[in-house]
Parts: sequence; structure tokens; C-alpha cells
Amino acid sequence: MLASEALVPVSNGFPASALSPPRSQPTLAYDERGKPLTDAELPSLSAGKASCLMRSGQMTAQRYILSLLSHINQRDGHIQAWVFLDAKGAINQAKTLDELAPEQRGPLHGVPVGIKDIIAVKGQYENASKTHIVNLGMPTRYGSTIHDDDGPALADAAIVSILRSTGAIILGKTATTEFAATSRGGSCRNPRDLSRTPGGSSSGSAAAVADGHVPIAVGTQTGGSMIRPGSFTGTFALKPTWGALSTEGVGRFSISCDTLGFYTRNMDDLSLLSQIVRISPGSRNIPPPLRPSSCRVALIRSPMWPKAGPGTRGAWEQADRVLQQAGATVVHVELPNVFNRCYDWRETIVSSEARAAFLPRYLQAKEQLHSSIRKYVESKEYPSGEAVCEAYDCIGQLRNRWDKIAGEFDFVLTPSVPDEAPVGLEWTGSSAFCTLWTILHAPALNVPGLVGDSGLPIGLTVTGPRSADRSILEAGKFVGELFEDLQPAP
Amino acid sequence: MLASEALVPVSNGFPASALSPPRSQPTLAYDERGKPLTDAELPSLSAGKASCLMRSGQMTAQRYILSLLSHINQRDGHIQAWVFLDAKGAINQAKTLDELAPEQRGPLHGVPVGIKDIIAVKGQYENASKTHIVNLGMPTRYGSTIHDDDGPALADAAIVSILRSTGAIILGKTATTEFAATSRGGSCRNPRDLSRTPGGSSSGSAAAVADGHVPIAVGTQTGGSMIRPGSFTGTFALKPTWGALSTEGVGRFSISCDTLGFYTRNMDDLSLLSQIVRISPGSRNIPPPLRPSSCRVALIRSPMWPKAGPGTRGAWEQADRVLQQAGATVVHVELPNVFNRCYDWRETIVSSEARAAFLPRYLQAKEQLHSSIRKYVESKEYPSGEAVCEAYDCIGQLRNRWDKIAGEFDFVLTPSVPDEAPVGLEWTGSSAFCTLWTILHAPALNVPGLVGDSGLPIGLTVTGPRSADRSILEAGKFVGELFEDLQPAP
Repeated sequence: MLASEALVPVSNGFPASALSPPRSQPTLAYDERGKPLTDAELPSLSAGKASCLMRSGQMTAQRYILSLLSHINQRDGHIQAWVFLDAKGAINQAKTLDELAPEQRGPLHGVPVGIKDIIAVKGQYENASKTHIVNLGMPTRYGSTIHDDDGPALADAAIVSILRSTGAIILGKTATTEFAATSRGGSCRNPRDLSRTPGGSSSGSAAAVADGHVPIAVGTQTGGSMIRPGSFTGTFALKPTWGALSTEGVGRFSISCDTLGFYTRNMDDLSLLSQIVRISPGSRNIPPPLRPSSCRVALIRSPMWPKAGPGTRGAWEQADRVLQQAGATVVHVELPNVFNRCYDWRETIVSSEARAAFLPRYLQAKEQLHSSIRKYVESKEYPSGEAVCEAYDCIGQLRNRWDKIAGEFDFVLTPSVPDEAPVGLEWTGSSAFCTLWTILHAPALNVPGLVGDSGLPIGLTVTGPRSADRSILEAGKFVGELFEDLQPAP
Repeated sequence: MLASEALVPVSNGFPASALSPPRSQPTLAYDERGKPLTDAELPSLSAGKASCLMRSGQMTAQRYILSLLSHINQRDGHIQAWVFLDAKGAINQAKTLDELAPEQRGPLHGVPVGIKDIIAVKGQYENASKTHIVNLGMPTRYGSTIHDDDGPALADAAIVSILRSTGAIILGKTATTEFAATSRGGSCRNPRDLSRTPGGSSSGSAAAVADGHVPIAVGTQTGGSMIRPGSFTGTFALKPTWGALSTEGVGRFSISCDTLGFYTRNMDDLSLLSQIVRISPGSRNIPPPLRPSSCRVALIRSPMWPKAGPGTRGAWEQADRVLQQAGATVVHVELPNVFNRCYDWRETIVSSEARAAFLPRYLQAKEQLHSSIRKYVESKEYPSGEAVCEAYDCIGQLRNRWDKIAGEFDFVLTPSVPDEAPVGLEWTGSSAFCTLWTILHAPALNVPGLVGDSGLPIGLTVTGPRSADRSILEAGKFVGELFEDLQPAP
């Protein structure tokens, strides 16, 4: 299930490597010590392990979904990760999946997935006639009241369609900040500390994965909306290179920045997902597995370093130390000053694109929009066309320069967030450390494993040149294992 | 209604200038010679004139829509511009609009609009409960059989939402080639000569406007899908600067190229639309009205000139001559050789982005996709990540260079197509002359008025720097009037 395995298309469109059970691992529903898995243990399974058990008939999709639904039932009153849960539809789908012959089972056979509520999910419906539909299914609310009266979407977003075709169960919609465009939190809580925000805007997707509700959830990032919740909740979060995944069917904020991504609890699931959605065929050459002794790592504190609090500073020093102890060559790299200007250029681009994105909803119901969203449309200090073009062009040149800087190393490590998740639910935290890689279109991966002063997660970001997604997945595995070794055994 | 008028937002969100009746023109339902307009004359009204008559109560929205529906009923058996026509919904909406108080009437009050069938239009529905919907409305089929069983969308695409908020009537869905991504024609015919293609992929939108079914239709361009049908059918076609309009709710082909646009039968309607959708607030400074005597025009034959047939060559010479006769300074400009490479870079970008765009439908039902679309996903010669990034970066630099070249002139004139519309419906014609401006993100405007050897329309394209949309609208008016003066009186 390694990202570096050759992609051999098979008849149903999935790479063979994504379908074959890992032969060196047990495929029975037992844990690693040979004891049968109890229902209470199922929520901690990886997607890869769970789907392997279900594909090989060692566990039914119905047993798995029922155990997760029971877990969600116990937990989500506290967490509020879900804004819509299609329990009935999921159980029905599990029944159908259980009836499939083994050769018809996809790589995510029976795996329930959470979808951020700015992404369209097709409702189930009975097609009485082509213009008269009885529709039962999932709404899309965008963390807003504007779409309260809309019914379910009748076409899946591109990413949902891909996941559905793998046998995944689309379990429900997860909490998001308003149109994924504000940092005003909702009622979703951080499973690591209920008094704190899980981060945003992909709040519910990160929280649901962190809390074992689902092994995989889909989110989006325009500033830091994947990486920040990943860091705050202690999950792996991948924001691939911009353009690698189609955002058709996803609510628009900034066309140059909006990127889909995934939350998981381990690197293998991210690698599996990257194969399924084919992030990688156009990727830079398949990287060889990282060898610690010959590995070159750039540590980039980034222009935002003064915002780093004690948690991130401590994690940073720890990461530096363990990388060196592992034998890696660690180089502290400072970005050329011109990169400091990216933040302003990004503001210009996002404000221009957000204006186009939010005009329709502004005209429809401006009084229902958060003031920060209204401002994109109303602002008198709207950047000139020349300023917007200049921002596009300057950032464009820096993307190329970034690729060259990052391409000198096996991977780049940089902070994910200023510190642990802030206390309170009002504010979803700062995206300061994330926005640079988003506007540079670079892949970014939050690797959890370190902790701050309150014992809460601090992630670090693995990044690299555009389209080096495979390399950063390899690096994430390496870094993740180093961090894991630092933890006291549970 | 000039594009150069100041944009003063008023309470309902539209610029005041878009709402005030043009005081110098008659507002009664009479023609310019003071004779009452007959129903048969209504299909030739402009959107601006028609909405003005309806806003001021001189014509009911019901009378207007019924006259257009009757015209469509007589004509569309031959043309086949529409793949779905919501006549009942349109009449109902007209009734509702007629009951609105004058101050509640928007700038497109009562104006029916055609929407290319890759763009989502919300169905009308009865919301029995939030998860159980009885839905009656408009499907989205993308010129494909894949979505045959989908019901109507339950949210409008961004552009549809904006138009609806202006009082426009969303009349139906217009014919498109498959996912707007092939040049295989369907059954839609060119109203100027039924034996010929209307061009593609926005075939039905261009044909519907050319044939008087609606005064406005929405299309999209990824290569030449707005400009080419505009030229072939003799309509005005505006493809604004990339990013000026949100493509949320529009089928994806290539995120860096996909651009929404409008067809109209005159420049005033395009100016009105550009105000309504606010293409321009970030535009380069409001241009002064063009003065022929001090006007500098670049004529750029482009690297595709060898493809120009006798029709385009004749139109080109004629345009050169009339511009000079009008007093303009005409400069023949040859693009630096590096622009020749744009075509390959565009191919690389589009093939990479199309791959991401079509993967979901490929996994869902690859046997229903045209081979040229399947190829995007299946191709073994998929460009490397490095090649895609190089293409992005090189094109990015040329955008800046293009702005500087074009910025030396009041506007640029360049061919729209190789010649008149080809005979037959199989092939929608060549986009060779259009793709450069699409990938450069420049605004492009097809101005009709010239004719080829068979007496069929030949358009020319007005273009300019990115975000100079207002300037090219001004220029389109100037050029359109020059071309109009060449025509024998009807």
C-alpha cells in the first residue's frame, strides 16, 4: 500500500496495489496479538485495515458501520462534528456492499467517510419520472442559513463520486465555518480537550477522524483550513498540490487557493487515498524510500516565526533534534525576503476571487452573511485589476522559485500553527503558518505526534515543490514514525 | 447603460445605472418609428429594451415570454438549440414578476435567459420536509448520457443565482457538446444556414440568441467555445477575464481555462450584463469613450494565421480598411516567437487538469464517455509534474508580457475563426484562433458584422490586457458600429 508502488490500472479502474490484501498481515478480524477485535475496538481501525477485513469477508460492512454509529452516538453529543448523519442510508449501503462478490469490492469497500458540508453529496431518490423526483438524502448547508431550504444535491461533487466508486460509504456532512471562509467557530469541539476549538474551517472533518467516528474525512483549505485542524486535533492532514483534485461540486471561496484534502489517523491511509484519487501519476518521479542517513531536510521557520508560541518552539527544537539523531542532514533555511510579500499578494488575490465567489449569495441574502464575507463584496478598497494581475504574476514567479529551493532537499519541515488549539470555540485559530504553502500551490501534510505545554497536539508541516506529493507522503511516513517513537506507550 | 458609467450600489444590490430607464428613449411598447410593436417583433428586442418596457409597465412579462415561446415553438424544431425548456415554469415566473411593484423590478426584469447545459439550475420544488423533497425542475445533462437519471440540481450555479436575482427568467438549458470538452456536434443547427454547425461547445446558447429565442444566453469557453459559435452565428460573445465570474456550479474541464461568458445580439446588452455581474469594479481604469481619430489599434494575426481561409482573410482586410478610414491608427503587430509555445503549454495544462476533472465520471461510467475524454484519464503519455509546473510558470510570465504588449493600444483586433461555419453538424469547427487568449486569461469579445464568401457571418475578436474588460466593451461598441455601417440595410 506504499505510495511508491507502481500504479497498474486494472479493469475496474483502480490500481491493483490498492486492492490486494497486504499478504504479510493477518486478514482475520483479530488484533495484532491474535485476540478477536471487539466492537469497541473498531473505531480505532485504519481505513486500510478495515476495508481489508471487509473485502476478505472477515468483517461485514454492517458490523463495522454499526460499531461506528454506536461510537458516534456516544460521542457526538460532546463533539458535534456532524451537521448531518445519514445513518439509515449508511446501513442500507453496508447491506448492499455485504452482498457484493469479493471481486466487485473496491479499495475502500465499506469504509465510512465524512464530507465537509461545503461539498455536494447526491441524495438518494426515487425517480418517478425525469422531471418529478422524490428525493431523500443529504443537504449541503455551507455552515450558513442561506441554504436551509435547499433540498439535497442531485449530483455528487467530483471527490464524492470518486470515493463512492471505491465502495466508501458517504456517512454524512461535517461541521464547517461559514462557507469555509471565516474563522468564527461553531459548536464543534476538539476531542482532545472539549473546551477548545478543533480549528477550522474543516472543523468537523478533523474532529470526526480524531475521535474515531470515521477513519477518513474530506476537508478543504483556502488558507489553513486543513492543516490547522489537523494540528489541533492530532490528525494527519494532506492538502495536495493545487489542481490535483477536481473541486467541482465544492463551494467556492478563492479559485486559486481552494484545495481539497483528507484527514486520517495514519500515513498508510493517506497513501491509499492518494492512489485512489490518482494524485500522483503526473507527480515528480517516484521517490525512493527515505534513508535517514542520506536524507537532507530543510527546516524553514518561515516569515511567520515570531507568531510561534512555546508549544511550537518546543516541538520545533524536538523535531530538529530527532531528525539529527536519526542521521538526517538538517539545514536551516531562510526564505529570500521576497517571500514575505506573498502574504499581501495572497490577500489581494483572495479578496478579488472571494468577491466573485460571494456576489451571488450576497445578492440573494446579504443579511445572512457574516460581515467578513459581506466585506469582500462591499469593500470600497477593492484592489485594482492591475494589482490583482501583479499579485498573480509575482506569486507565479515565486512558485517556480519555491520549487527550486525545496527541490534541493528530500523534504521541507515547517510549523503548522502558532501553538496548541486555543481555548474556546469562538475563534478557530490562526492560519498564519499555512497560507504561504497554499498560495504557492505546494503540497502540505500535517504530521502529528508532538505535544505542547498542556499536553495537546502540535503538528508540523511537511512540504516540498509543487507536484511532489509522493515525496512528501514518503517523508510524512518517516517523520511520523520518528515522532511516534517519542511518545510514551499508551 | 454604458460600461463607463459609475457604479453606484443601491439598496437592492444593483448599480443605479442598471435600473434607470434610458430617458432619451421611448419607454412605450412602440418601435422607433412610433408604431406599436407586434408580437412577431418582440423576439428581436434587446434585453435592455425589453426589460425597460416591462419595468415601466408598458409590456407584461407574460406577453413577452409568450411571444418568445411561440417563436421558439415555430423555430426550434429546425434549430434544436434547447435540450430542456421550462415553458410552464417561465410563464409562472412571468406572472409573479408582473405582480411586482415597479421599485422591486430588477435590471433584467422579465428577460428570459438560456443556460448552457453544463451549468446547474435549481429546480422548483415543494419542500414537504427537509429530507423529503418533491422536485420539479431542470436537469443538467452536460451533453452526456451519464447524468440521464439525475434529477434537477437543487442549487443554482453562481451565475444563475446572480441572473435570477435581477429578475431574469431562467427559460431552459441549451445544447452543448459532451461536457463542453469535445468538438463532436450534436443536432443543434446554425440559424444562418441549417446545413452548418453553430459551432461549439456553447452551440445552443449561440444559436438561441442568433435566432431570437432569447436576447441573452450563458455559455463557457475552455478553448474557443464562446467566440467560435459567436462568429459562426453572427452574435456578440463576451468571454471576460478569467476569474471575473465564479464558475461554482459549472461542469469542470480545465480549471485554468474554463470561463463563463454571454451571448447577445448587441453591445448594449453585453455592457448591461457586465455591470450586473460586476465584471468591472476591479478593472483597469474606466476607459474614456474611444475617439476614432486618436485611437490606436493593434491588428494581430496571431501564430495561427496560416489557418485563415478566404472568409477571414477578406474580413481582416476589410476591418483594417474601415478602421483606417475611421481615422484610427492601425499597427500590425507580430507576437514574439515565444508566444508560439503557448499552444503546447496550454495542451499540457489542459490535459493535466482535464484528467483531474474527468476522473470521477471515468470511474463512474467510462464506456459512456467520448474517446477524447477517456483519453485524458487513460493516456500513457501523461505529462510529468515538472512539465505541468513549467507550463503554468511559462504561461504565467507570458500573461504579464501580453498585458504590456496589449496595453500599448486602445484595443487589439484578431481573428475569431478560420472561416465561415463549416458545412455539416459532425464537427463544431476549429478553436485555433481562440485558445491563446483563453490561456492568457485575457478578455475576448467576438464582434460580428462581416461576412464570408457564402454570405455567412465572420466575426473578429477584440481583446486586450487581463482585466481590461471595460475597455474591450468600449472597443466592441466602436468596432461593432463600424462593421454595421458596412452592411446593406436589411
